[in-house]
Amino acid sequence: MLVQHMAALNNGKRIVLASGSPRRREILTMLGLAHEVHASAFEENLDKGAFPTPAEYAKTNASSKAAAVVAELAAGGGAGRCPDLVIGSDTIVVVDGRILEKPRSEAAAYEMLATLSGREHSVLSAVALFTPSRSEVRDKPATVFCEHTRVRFAPLSPETIAAYIRTGEPMDKAGSYGIQGVGGSFITGITGCYYNVMGFPLHAFTSAVARLLDAGEL
Amino acid sequence: MLVQHMAALNNGKRIVLASGSPRRREILTMLGLAHEVHASAFEENLDKGAFPTPAEYAKTNASSKAAAVVAELAAGGGAGRCPDLVIGSDTIVVVDGRILEKPRSEAAAYEMLATLSGREHSVLSAVALFTPSRSEVRDKPATVFCEHTRVRFAPLSPETIAAYIRTGEPMDKAGSYGIQGVGGSFITGITGCYYNVMGFPLHAFTSAVARLLDAGEL
Repeated sequence: MLVQHMAALNNGKRIVLASGSPRRREILTMLGLAHEVHASAFEENLDKGAFPTPAEYAKTNASSKAAAVVAELAAGGGAGRCPDLVIGSDTIVVVDGRILEKPRSEAAAYEMLATLSGREHSVLSAVALFTPSRSEVRDKPATVFCEHTRVRFAPLSPETIAAYIRTGEPMDKAGSYGIQGVGGSFITGITGCYYNVMGFPLHAFTSAVARLLDAGEL
Repeated sequence: MLVQHMAALNNGKRIVLASGSPRRREILTMLGLAHEVHASAFEENLDKGAFPTPAEYAKTNASSKAAAVVAELAAGGGAGRCPDLVIGSDTIVVVDGRILEKPRSEAAAYEMLATLSGREHSVLSAVALFTPSRSEVRDKPATVFCEHTRVRFAPLSPETIAAYIRTGEPMDKAGSYGIQGVGGSFITGITGCYYNVMGFPLHAFTSAVARLLDAGEL
């Protein structure tokens, strides 16, 4: 595990989170890992149909986000030393193999919520770890993985869905619901990593970083 | 579900959380439920051995915490109108039928963490809901329930346990770990309500409140 390496990480390593997500930052801070935040300029407009699985799509997004930040920091030249670890991440909601995006209309939100009602869906969070200070190949991650959590929704009545849409919460959320909000009350249970549902698979991340340290790759 | 009743609750009901837990307050706030906080004066010193199950112990703690606040607010007389809903809650960690408390020493913390290592344990959160403005019997809850979530720990090496104890985090935590902290990185997955692990079973709570409203009991 990572906890016995934390002092070495915090004293000697430059760690960059390539994500503007406040929740991911909060999770790393909770872990006690000192880090900088550089939101990625990567535009998330890949063709989902070009990937064999939703997990591959999320992993490519996570890698591309981190790679953009690695390139940006490298271009900055003397502005700072080369980062030791750059962390990219991407979270998607999947049901029946279909990736649910942000709804384009209230009708689309209604349809998504009716789809999720009374059944299980998946939340996938991919993480890509780049180690630019150790690696000659800076555009490929040292490791990339995707964690899968199953999420169960209670049955939602049409009145519940309509009232939820009126709160405004669904309209900027992938899958049309916010786990960190009123939408959390619809969830009867999950199976898997619960930080993954928040957008960052904490246990898998700490295990991967510990493996990189043990292997001398970080 | 509760979302379609939220405006009526927030405009007309006096809701009191009988707990000083910042995490519980945060979850109710996230839900959008306006509430006051009155930490309970109830001393948690019941004899665990007197209860048939850990769940009964947690439910009695939750009820006793809320009942103390109901009595305190009633004694306040004209200081405020009678609350419509008083919420008590209690969360415990259970492994092999044994309730894990806060460790009394670093050796005790080591023993608990070694017990939890590489296996599953249970987190139980009980909630008691009192409706003193509607009920003539003010010392009994309108409803009380206990939600059970299974939590899986990764195998922890002696070095990991020792390093974790050095962080100081385990020493004031039931079960010797904090899910909202470095201890969260030990958890490979959970099965059940994830807010329950934070100390408040959000879905079960909203379902119970909606049932009380539908039945005209709140």
